[in-house]
Amino acid sequence: MRILLVGAGGVGSAAVAIAARRSFFETMVVADYDLGRASRAIADHDARFVAAHVDASSADAVAALCREHRITHVLNAVDPRFVMPIFDGAFAAGADYLDMAMSLSHPHPTRPHSETGVKLGDDQFAVSDQWSAAGRLALCGIGIEPGLSDVFARYAADELFAEIDEIGVRDGANLTVDGYDFAPSFSIWTTIEECLNPPVIWEADRGWYTTPPFSEPEVFHFPEGIGPVECVNVEHEEVLLIPRWVKAKRVTFKYGLGDEFIEVLKTLHKLGLDSTSPITVRGMQVSPRDVVAACLPDPATLGDRMHGKTCAGTYVTGTGPDGRPRKVYLYHVVDNEWSMKEYGHQAVVWQTAINPVVALELLATGAWSSAGVIGPEALPPVPFLDLLTSYGSPWGMEER
Amino acid sequence: MRILLVGAGGVGSAAVAIAARRSFFETMVVADYDLGRASRAIADHDARFVAAHVDASSADAVAALCREHRITHVLNAVDPRFVMPIFDGAFAAGADYLDMAMSLSHPHPTRPHSETGVKLGDDQFAVSDQWSAAGRLALCGIGIEPGLSDVFARYAADELFAEIDEIGVRDGANLTVDGYDFAPSFSIWTTIEECLNPPVIWEADRGWYTTPPFSEPEVFHFPEGIGPVECVNVEHEEVLLIPRWVKAKRVTFKYGLGDEFIEVLKTLHKLGLDSTSPITVRGMQVSPRDVVAACLPDPATLGDRMHGKTCAGTYVTGTGPDGRPRKVYLYHVVDNEWSMKEYGHQAVVWQTAINPVVALELLATGAWSSAGVIGPEALPPVPFLDLLTSYGSPWGMEER
Repeated sequence: MRILLVGAGGVGSAAVAIAARRSFFETMVVADYDLGRASRAIADHDARFVAAHVDASSADAVAALCREHRITHVLNAVDPRFVMPIFDGAFAAGADYLDMAMSLSHPHPTRPHSETGVKLGDDQFAVSDQWSAAGRLALCGIGIEPGLSDVFARYAADELFAEIDEIGVRDGANLTVDGYDFAPSFSIWTTIEECLNPPVIWEADRGWYTTPPFSEPEVFHFPEGIGPVECVNVEHEEVLLIPRWVKAKRVTFKYGLGDEFIEVLKTLHKLGLDSTSPITVRGMQVSPRDVVAACLPDPATLGDRMHGKTCAGTYVTGTGPDGRPRKVYLYHVVDNEWSMKEYGHQAVVWQTAINPVVALELLATGAWSSAGVIGPEALPPVPFLDLLTSYGSPWGMEER
Repeated sequence: MRILLVGAGGVGSAAVAIAARRSFFETMVVADYDLGRASRAIADHDARFVAAHVDASSADAVAALCREHRITHVLNAVDPRFVMPIFDGAFAAGADYLDMAMSLSHPHPTRPHSETGVKLGDDQFAVSDQWSAAGRLALCGIGIEPGLSDVFARYAADELFAEIDEIGVRDGANLTVDGYDFAPSFSIWTTIEECLNPPVIWEADRGWYTTPPFSEPEVFHFPEGIGPVECVNVEHEEVLLIPRWVKAKRVTFKYGLGDEFIEVLKTLHKLGLDSTSPITVRGMQVSPRDVVAACLPDPATLGDRMHGKTCAGTYVTGTGPDGRPRKVYLYHVVDNEWSMKEYGHQAVVWQTAINPVVALELLATGAWSSAGVIGPEALPPVPFLDLLTSYGSPWGMEER
């Protein structure tokens, strides 16, 4: 297996550190728009790792880099506006493709808060037949959420339930960062994108529909000492992926944002600072959202000042195999202190990065194989969960 | 009188419209960094008005333009970061100078919320002797606030009180703007500057000192139907100007910001988006505060969608000439509907712009004359108030 990792930011750098301990691949080319950043990501690792420059907005540049290094698998670890050129570039070069976020949505032009427009991943699913016909695999949404959360959903359907009422992905943390008034633990660009777009919900008798942002607030109790966190509906890939392969009456995603973060996001939106369209500022063209991101500390650099745990998981309700009501939360918790000490990467990016590395190893060994554009819930969940545990990062399950 | 107006934004354009109805000056050169904006400001007016390009950050450019047009008076109507080059350029060219905001403050390096650092206007007062020696006048802070509010303070001291306890400038409005979630009625650049700097207070036995932002909230009742508005301490020139010429035990400035605006300002500060220092965004250097300003509608263009009234005034408490306690609010209200219909300029910029035009006319007629760096309260208030009224914009007074 010869891997091209596109993006040497927080998640990409953590993926390098995780993959470096495994032997399933021959080479990993780590490419970034900033060659220095790619070089820093591989600096402490063995000769299988090579740094390269790439412009992720160019499918041709991605394809050329694949051909140069005889790449078999492309792992996309940049922000989701670059999904399509990387996805197209991998296909053009005959490589398989993995990502952790799918192609972007566009709200319904007139009823954004009740109907979907272009949905997350639509642009990728539209060419699934071409990928299948070519025998190529695009495994989409294989980070933590989407990713492990989807594996949990499939595991619940296969092993724990006779019938499922709701699959509700629930994400919460008790992370704090010393020395900053406000320091998001994940890419603010992506957080704005997912939180300010109209949240999407799936129901068996209604299909996909949307609501206003921050809808249906709910206090969810997270395990391992994190405790209660206020969660709200957020647009996320799981709601688009899970219903395609797993039978349930309802699928939702709620994110434990907290009051302060919601207030910040609302204010950014009110002022137009969430916009990605360039505006003219003293003769220069800049996107306000890029400016917001540039004002805040890089979340990948905050690990030393961060404290607490982050939890991703899937809450499933329905009827168990014994015919009785069942409620289960399947989850994965990372303590920042542990991930910093063990890997030198903060908890949120480390927790995202481990999943595509596990998936690549399953593809390398043949435990997973498929073609076309698919989500993680299309593949058998047990090999994934077992290999994740053997990486030293076990998952948990609570009956509720 | 030959006037150079620097800045054809909201206030500058309104000043042109007001001055166009008066005959006290020979020419007014309207200069802006954007020549097109200067040309639009003078488009409907007579041949005394000339448009020009100027770089307000260059004292040499300002001085050269003064010499070219034999300017006698420079009126500065750009944002306060350009005060010093325009002030210095006017002096170099032998012109008198007027502004509506003074040179910027810098917080105390270690005790910003209790002690002053560099105060508003300090850089200008530092060279007052040079202006006096040259027989040149710098009349600073002659907008609405500072400006008319300072004239009110001097009027109260001269005509209404034997002894003053507190002079409290109080500004409030009930303006709304159709079609925008958030649309400030005045320059957001200046509003951020004055609201996020530590507010300054003057007390006779303590001198100037500072507090944390948004301190001492107070509900003040504004006249002419505006009603109660929550006001908080804000750094403003009046607190630096009034105690130099008017005897009082305490001088404050409170601005009726409202809860929503305060929340927006706090969020901008928390994210570093209030900063004026350039940051690197995709290879370009931009100041976050400039980006915030560019995201929001230009307040000068909102007049047609704006409704309501704005009030500026000075609340004075103490002992009247009869020895009895007295409380008086001297104020000036502009109804946006009136200013749009009468002048085509929205209420807030129009209310700011009328005062320097009145002051220029008093200097032209000789009713006002002085030298050195002074504030409006250094000059006799009655001629100013009478001429303001004869411009068709009377002031009011409430005994409380």
